[in-house]
Amino acid sequence: MSKIDKSYAIIGTGAIGGFYGAKLQNIGLDVHFLLHNDYDHVRQNGLVVESPEGNIILPQVKAYKNAENMPKCDVVVVALKAINNAILHDILPFILKDDSILLLLQNGLGVEEELANFLATIDKKAKIIGGMCFVCSNKVGPGYIRHLDYSSITLGEYLPNYQSAGITEEMKQIAVNFEQTGIPIELCEDLLLARWKNLIWNIPYNGLSVVLNARTDEIMSSQDIRILAEELMWEVVEGAKAYQRIIPEAFVKKMLDHTEKMKPYRTSMKLDYDEKRPLEVEAILGTPLRKSQEAGVELPKISMLYRQLKFLDQQNRAEKSQQKA
Amino acid sequence: MSKIDKSYAIIGTGAIGGFYGAKLQNIGLDVHFLLHNDYDHVRQNGLVVESPEGNIILPQVKAYKNAENMPKCDVVVVALKAINNAILHDILPFILKDDSILLLLQNGLGVEEELANFLATIDKKAKIIGGMCFVCSNKVGPGYIRHLDYSSITLGEYLPNYQSAGITEEMKQIAVNFEQTGIPIELCEDLLLARWKNLIWNIPYNGLSVVLNARTDEIMSSQDIRILAEELMWEVVEGAKAYQRIIPEAFVKKMLDHTEKMKPYRTSMKLDYDEKRPLEVEAILGTPLRKSQEAGVELPKISMLYRQLKFLDQQNRAEKSQQKA
Repeated sequence: MSKIDKSYAIIGTGAIGGFYGAKLQNIGLDVHFLLHNDYDHVRQNGLVVESPEGNIILPQVKAYKNAENMPKCDVVVVALKAINNAILHDILPFILKDDSILLLLQNGLGVEEELANFLATIDKKAKIIGGMCFVCSNKVGPGYIRHLDYSSITLGEYLPNYQSAGITEEMKQIAVNFEQTGIPIELCEDLLLARWKNLIWNIPYNGLSVVLNARTDEIMSSQDIRILAEELMWEVVEGAKAYQRIIPEAFVKKMLDHTEKMKPYRTSMKLDYDEKRPLEVEAILGTPLRKSQEAGVELPKISMLYRQLKFLDQQNRAEKSQQKA
Repeated sequence: MSKIDKSYAIIGTGAIGGFYGAKLQNIGLDVHFLLHNDYDHVRQNGLVVESPEGNIILPQVKAYKNAENMPKCDVVVVALKAINNAILHDILPFILKDDSILLLLQNGLGVEEELANFLATIDKKAKIIGGMCFVCSNKVGPGYIRHLDYSSITLGEYLPNYQSAGITEEMKQIAVNFEQTGIPIELCEDLLLARWKNLIWNIPYNGLSVVLNARTDEIMSSQDIRILAEELMWEVVEGAKAYQRIIPEAFVKKMLDHTEKMKPYRTSMKLDYDEKRPLEVEAILGTPLRKSQEAGVELPKISMLYRQLKFLDQQNRAEKSQQKA
């Protein structure tokens, strides 16, 4: 697989998959979108990305309701919430080639390992690349994405037990396509380090936005909560250290600084909460906590945030089912 | 001051002052109620306490709008939120005799010390007794208290620097009057220990009820939050230990057990929050945290709860002033 322009399958055409998929199609790449609820709308009307970097209007996209109708693609982009990954078992067998790259644009720890284990059971050999997006984008309607700020992706290739894979050929190939669209790409030699670094932002901001009903700007403009966010970040640094991954102090400062300058943003977990969808509590908080505990490190504030979120998630969805009843 | 039936001034006729004051008047004691917003209503209609132990209807009570019109009383019961204690400076000079007892039915650490410092500045010699109420009661309307469960008070006398005062004569005298009304009284030789024990309940349940929008029964029926409440209790035990006060494990278990059996209860802090009143965050969490830090002990989960509550309190009252504007 050496051609430069790859074909892409986008699994999950929401805030993430819709945004990056539209960017890729917009520069002329062959992109295939798998949809569920929005299928009819997108098949008829295509995709819209509203963005300060320039709007993208794609009146026609290749939309699919079932993976079995999709072609096998060079790159399969998983842009589902990790909580829904079980459905991949019914999707991936249809669209993976032997030399496909599986690119997981997902939050949380451990997602690559889980999928690698699944691929082994179906005897597929795809390379797995973890992609951590630093992007503010929301799906505001069917096939309608509002991109607010940032768009960069950090890529790291998975090897068993999260051994460091270095900068691989597959990572470079994906980077070429994404960079053509104007998306900044960072290549990371060590996926596990990149995953922990990603949690530096995701744990405090996703978590506190739900518990405190707050946007990022409200979090940053409160002296108390800005301190609490930073304290949570230092606990993530401790968790990473338990796996010999060192997150530099400058990275923590950079995340605080980026968030301070960010346009007021409702995090993805807060959006899920407001829509009464299940929260990514396990991938973002539960797994890192358990991994830290296994390595003998307690993270008391992350543990407290995790319990608070589990409670709020349960209450939130219990209310939803009561409303339905 | 050796007469058995004492005269009482009740400063703050709400869920606490209204309940205990009505109990005292109901057995024939001379009780004087200081009121603010509810003055007109209570002067005309008296007080009602609805209670599973028997309702109390007092069509006439001695109600006052200004302390200067009140007689000097044997016992001055302060049943304000600690956050409002500054107004005592304009009240106490009128109603304290040289041998009055000042009984503080308030939450939090340090309230006795603050008042002792104030009394010194006005050259008054009243004894100060801290009273920690374990009671579920709410003011549901002007002069209308709904008592739900429990009613006991733990008394401890204040000595400078919270030295242990032992069981004093004044404590016994107050106990006689309260016990006549059916209120269980526990006398405690060491006020500081009693105050820390009181925080075992107040910190987790008041705090979590606001952050998680939950009643006590919802807190206790969630496995995660029940564990979190207990973890917060163990941090209180650590704080007390920093001052050589040992809270036995059995006491923690008793508080969990009591709360499990408690009728579903909206805590006083949650009521304040719902009414957009200022929260007792400093007395209940801020002062214990600072005292612990001064003694070299960090309480990470209480610190996190404290910051969350300060944020929510600010947002809550900012909304209120916006609504007014």
